[in-house]
Amino acid sequence: MASKFKLPLLFLLIVFVAATCLASKDPELKQCKHQCKVQRQFDEQQKRDCERSCDEYYKMKKEREREKGRNYESEEEEEEEEEEENNPYVFEDEHFEGKVEIGEGRIRVLQKFTQRSELLRGIENFRVSIVEANPSTFVIPTHFDAEIVLFVAQGRGTITVIKEKRGSFDVKCGDVFRIPSGAPFYFINKDEHQKLKIVKLLQTTSVPGRFETFQPAGGGENPESFYTAFSWDLLEAAFKIPRDKLERFFKQRRAGTIIKASREQIRSLSQHEEIIPKIWPFSEGETERPFNLLKQHPCQSNKFGRLFEAYPDEFGQLRDLGVAVAFANVTEGSMMAPHYNSKAMKIAVVVDGEGGFQMACPHFSSSSGRSGRWSEQEQEQKGERSYQKIRGRLRRGVVFVVPAGHPFSVFASPNHSLQIVCFEVNAYGNTKYLLAGKDNIVNKMERVARELGFNTPGREVERMFKQQEEEFFFPGPNQQEHEWAEA
Amino acid sequence: MASKFKLPLLFLLIVFVAATCLASKDPELKQCKHQCKVQRQFDEQQKRDCERSCDEYYKMKKEREREKGRNYESEEEEEEEEEEENNPYVFEDEHFEGKVEIGEGRIRVLQKFTQRSELLRGIENFRVSIVEANPSTFVIPTHFDAEIVLFVAQGRGTITVIKEKRGSFDVKCGDVFRIPSGAPFYFINKDEHQKLKIVKLLQTTSVPGRFETFQPAGGGENPESFYTAFSWDLLEAAFKIPRDKLERFFKQRRAGTIIKASREQIRSLSQHEEIIPKIWPFSEGETERPFNLLKQHPCQSNKFGRLFEAYPDEFGQLRDLGVAVAFANVTEGSMMAPHYNSKAMKIAVVVDGEGGFQMACPHFSSSSGRSGRWSEQEQEQKGERSYQKIRGRLRRGVVFVVPAGHPFSVFASPNHSLQIVCFEVNAYGNTKYLLAGKDNIVNKMERVARELGFNTPGREVERMFKQQEEEFFFPGPNQQEHEWAEA
Amino acid sequence: MASKFKLPLLFLLIVFVAATCLASKDPELKQCKHQCKVQRQFDEQQKRDCERSCDEYYKMKKEREREKGRNYESEEEEEEEEEEENNPYVFEDEHFEGKVEIGEGRIRVLQKFTQRSELLRGIENFRVSIVEANPSTFVIPTHFDAEIVLFVAQGRGTITVIKEKRGSFDVKCGDVFRIPSGAPFYFINKDEHQKLKIVKLLQTTSVPGRFETFQPAGGGENPESFYTAFSWDLLEAAFKIPRDKLERFFKQRRAGTIIKASREQIRSLSQHEEIIPKIWPFSEGETERPFNLLKQHPCQSNKFGRLFEAYPDEFGQLRDLGVAVAFANVTEGSMMAPHYNSKAMKIAVVVDGEGGFQMACPHFSSSSGRSGRWSEQEQEQKGERSYQKIRGRLRRGVVFVVPAGHPFSVFASPNHSLQIVCFEVNAYGNTKYLLAGKDNIVNKMERVARELGFNTPGREVERMFKQQEEEFFFPGPNQQEHEWAEA
Repeated sequence: MASKFKLPLLFLLIVFVAATCLASKDPELKQCKHQCKVQRQFDEQQKRDCERSCDEYYKMKKEREREKGRNYESEEEEEEEEEEENNPYVFEDEHFEGKVEIGEGRIRVLQKFTQRSELLRGIENFRVSIVEANPSTFVIPTHFDAEIVLFVAQGRGTITVIKEKRGSFDVKCGDVFRIPSGAPFYFINKDEHQKLKIVKLLQTTSVPGRFETFQPAGGGENPESFYTAFSWDLLEAAFKIPRDKLERFFKQRRAGTIIKASREQIRSLSQHEEIIPKIWPFSEGETERPFNLLKQHPCQSNKFGRLFEAYPDEFGQLRDLGVAVAFANVTEGSMMAPHYNSKAMKIAVVVDGEGGFQMACPHFSSSSGRSGRWSEQEQEQKGERSYQKIRGRLRRGVVFVVPAGHPFSVFASPNHSLQIVCFEVNAYGNTKYLLAGKDNIVNKMERVARELGFNTPGREVERMFKQQEEEFFFPGPNQQEHEWAEA
Repeated sequence: MASKFKLPLLFLLIVFVAATCLASKDPELKQCKHQCKVQRQFDEQQKRDCERSCDEYYKMKKEREREKGRNYESEEEEEEEEEEENNPYVFEDEHFEGKVEIGEGRIRVLQKFTQRSELLRGIENFRVSIVEANPSTFVIPTHFDAEIVLFVAQGRGTITVIKEKRGSFDVKCGDVFRIPSGAPFYFINKDEHQKLKIVKLLQTTSVPGRFETFQPAGGGENPESFYTAFSWDLLEAAFKIPRDKLERFFKQRRAGTIIKASREQIRSLSQHEEIIPKIWPFSEGETERPFNLLKQHPCQSNKFGRLFEAYPDEFGQLRDLGVAVAFANVTEGSMMAPHYNSKAMKIAVVVDGEGGFQMACPHFSSSSGRSGRWSEQEQEQKGERSYQKIRGRLRRGVVFVVPAGHPFSVFASPNHSLQIVCFEVNAYGNTKYLLAGKDNIVNKMERVARELGFNTPGREVERMFKQQEEEFFFPGPNQQEHEWAEA
Repeated sequence: MASKFKLPLLFLLIVFVAATCLASKDPELKQCKHQCKVQRQFDEQQKRDCERSCDEYYKMKKEREREKGRNYESEEEEEEEEEEENNPYVFEDEHFEGKVEIGEGRIRVLQKFTQRSELLRGIENFRVSIVEANPSTFVIPTHFDAEIVLFVAQGRGTITVIKEKRGSFDVKCGDVFRIPSGAPFYFINKDEHQKLKIVKLLQTTSVPGRFETFQPAGGGENPESFYTAFSWDLLEAAFKIPRDKLERFFKQRRAGTIIKASREQIRSLSQHEEIIPKIWPFSEGETERPFNLLKQHPCQSNKFGRLFEAYPDEFGQLRDLGVAVAFANVTEGSMMAPHYNSKAMKIAVVVDGEGGFQMACPHFSSSSGRSGRWSEQEQEQKGERSYQKIRGRLRRGVVFVVPAGHPFSVFASPNHSLQIVCFEVNAYGNTKYLLAGKDNIVNKMERVARELGFNTPGREVERMFKQQEEEFFFPGPNQQEHEWAEA
């Protein structure tokens, strides 16, 4: 029976917010929810709705606090900590929707980008998910209503994809592989000791920004089989099998989404690579096989780091999505040159290591109703400043987003190198513009333009921009002075 | 003069909702509107605004009731009826905006998909319209701010489209024809006895999800001529015709949008096919003519049904839209295999017959703030179930939507065959994955994968999935036991 | 420290709106803001938030007044004036966000289209900006997170764009030039007497409908350098320059965004055209240079006006954006034929002159919840009319938007010719359909169709539509009778 709202939420909400004028931050939310619980005329459903309203009001309030001008009189250090918490470009553990231990592994899904901030609407259709499978396990057949680009961050396995025919592919650390929307697939971790870790970028196909998984065999701690959504008499006709057998088969509890496999089963599921691909019917031939990003010629490489890139015009699997995949390995104590992407939006996942992220962001500090530099400029005239200093502490599992045009840099901690996989959305025709190092944009300008732009004699500008002779990876910030991650 | 809001609606709304705590569902809405009417300080405009606020509040409330968790303790039968009412994927008579008898026919437009549910935002830009013209009638010249793909569901006529030159084309039942956005067109029903029925898919070009019709000759029960939106002195200059003559010409009442035509007029408008197309200047030659879907080689055919498909890479008219058109004829008492589309969203219109529709839907049951299977999984852990059982009773004029990846099936009643025309949006590279019948996806998996997935000896899985030997159309559910449409 | 909302805005808002029942329009907003200011418990931040709420409430209220049914009993003249004010398709001075005098010039940015009306959501990602640089000035290096198509409306300059290498190009009145998203560029006005005026269309790349500018050298009245968003120790490492020198360099105040340049500097920055392009690495060769629209063969030309068009399939720079650029010069006292674009949305900027704009618009008059002609039709049945008469007075700097399918016309005042540059979004495959003049759509219909459509003998229809023998530009409305701009 449908629930009824006997006491209007809006009314209650107003009472609540009026009542909490003096309450401090966290108690406020608690009290709101408490009010929901003690409403005797509410049934369970209404109480849940009421609590959701508290959450929404609170979230909205926090967002307004965050987006609209905060006062910047506070000391720089304090402020930066604040922003590290609040900026919508860095995602930590609490921004994953599920941290689900599923039997022999773990699957985590990052929240919708637009749930975090409207500023991320440009990548609304993309989602990130991270899968970890224990040694010697099988991840059961599933299809997604999303295009998938996956990157193997650790371990080795075999992935099988069903199209008109079946194709099986060995994958190992550094491999990139595309699974088309709707194609059922399953995979094994064939290593007996190491976890298999896979980072997935999903582009949703049915509801913008939402995706679902569908499994023919469900049960256990994973969702039921999708077959059970059909009526039994329809299934009887479809399978020509009597209902009792069907029920027994589809309703039995399974072992789970990620399950232990015997050595023999692993061996059996590993054997296909040599046999199947010859008859693999994917249209574009070789390009549809996984490719190893780390075996490409690095586009940047010195002792401070290495950068590997796969652009969609070279790799058939990425072509229709217009997504590039890159992998950066920053040596301990080193950094990337400050730079920006001309049109790509970067979604980066820290695979391992520790370090920091810095970005210049004019959007973030501008008020919501207006945009562009003109509102910035007004702030400037009022003595407020223009670019928000976005900061993020990087460690394994952190995700960060860099919009097009936004200058940013990444550095590794003094003691750990930093490994990052990046998905670059809208990558066709993208250019990396360097802001320091020997190919920086200022060096490419005419002397007179530099002089006029910086209102400084050309020689002096030159001295500033020609000192650093490395191209992309440099020795990192001097981390004796500061604690490195706040740098 | 612009109206003023003297008493704020928000305030009134609060009073209203507070006052209706004890009211039951329908009375609540009535009382809200009643409150609007008795506000003496309101002028007419304000009363209308007030009533609109009631509607919006009520709609929002209903949507929340629908989307957020309902209790599933009720018996299965009850629940299914409930869902038949509430699910946002099936559209019946009341979901059409107009059921307009216009002179010699009827034009109905389905509501915006996103007006129904945010879950349909992926097809927001598409609309459906159904036109019926009486025998021997003329549908007057019109242009739309939308791309149109039309399917002739019944009868025969001649359609004339104006591009640089004029082209006229005979059409009959089963024909598919593309009318480019903005191109003026008119058509006749040239049969003296049978209605001409046309199903249109529109892709909007100026405002997302909204389209308009524009007619040079208006009046009667249809909108005025668009010429009358210009000032008379501008028209005088444009036409070099004095104002009095212009007024007389453009302001006279016309006969309507669909009007009777004499046998002679019909004959005159039917004659062009043989003459015009030779000089028809549409760029892509033959492909731009109507093609008959029912004359294509059926991609599925046995005694239980036939399926015809036209994919955009084969038919020039569909190419830029990426829309496929399909026609399914399910024999009485038969069914389609449960299956899903890998990336296409299907918009299906029942042309004739009776039957039922079933779909597995994880989106529908998940709460709005969260998504993905992980919320599902939590529900599962709490003993709630994962896939919503979407059900629809199919009869002539019903529209249903199947998102990408969602398993579904359709069956005909024991006494009537079922004819459905389907528009498949985002059709490039789409694959149909079968879930039962000889080519089902489980049969394509390795034996070990089936065994592990279903946690059942391979032989048993094989017995389940190899029993049905037909490919796509099967004998339908055993409809003796159940009333067929609830099946 | 983050601010706290001690008195909830919502509550205050209600108090405010209740208190202002008797207040008239403008005083109402003033009083709302006054209420914000006198709240003693508010800190500055809260006061600003409060005032913003007033603005938002007021804007929402105005929009509702505008969009929802107004009463049409008023006289036609009154009503038209009203619409000239309220229609969302014409943008005047007050719809620009900034009118910023920046040193030696002025940069103005038109508000977001969707800030004006949801009806413009189809062009949400596009923005318009107008730049004027005084004689002998330099506009400092900047990059945008947007694709830019610029049209030189007046003067002559040299633009330098940085990609892998640097390219410099002389531009003059009539030139169209594409600057890719993210590419840093700078330019000079090299004329010693005339202003350089540039009209830009921007397509945003990072946040839909929002763009930002990024400058390596900031200070003065323009935003700070984006380098200052990085921490000093990161910059020390990136530049290998000690912090004190960096601070001095990046924090010094600059001269501004548009600054005076000496004759020698101008000469130096003008010289590159001859040298650089030979090594210019843009991929598509010649097409990437600016082209002069006014030197194309005019697609319409007689003594009443001339029309120049550049379609994206001919000009490589426009190809990936699908944007056409057109320039219309309407002779004084002349007009364009009423016509419409089949699928393109037109964004037009008046470069010079005076005149008027008329458009037929069914969207505008329909209520927001419903759409399509069927709501129109209901209005018709109630004696309300269907097409809104959109009117705009055109003068230098006015911007107007014409959605696909919407009939419109433009005319010049009796004393001034009218120059308009038009950006046409979604231009691939667009067709202009003429509604008067010798090629009008009615003349292309069969005699019987015209007769049936207009319910008038064919001869009479012919007399109406064949009188005007010009094709596109005609003598304008008889402007003795009316004041011309109301025509």
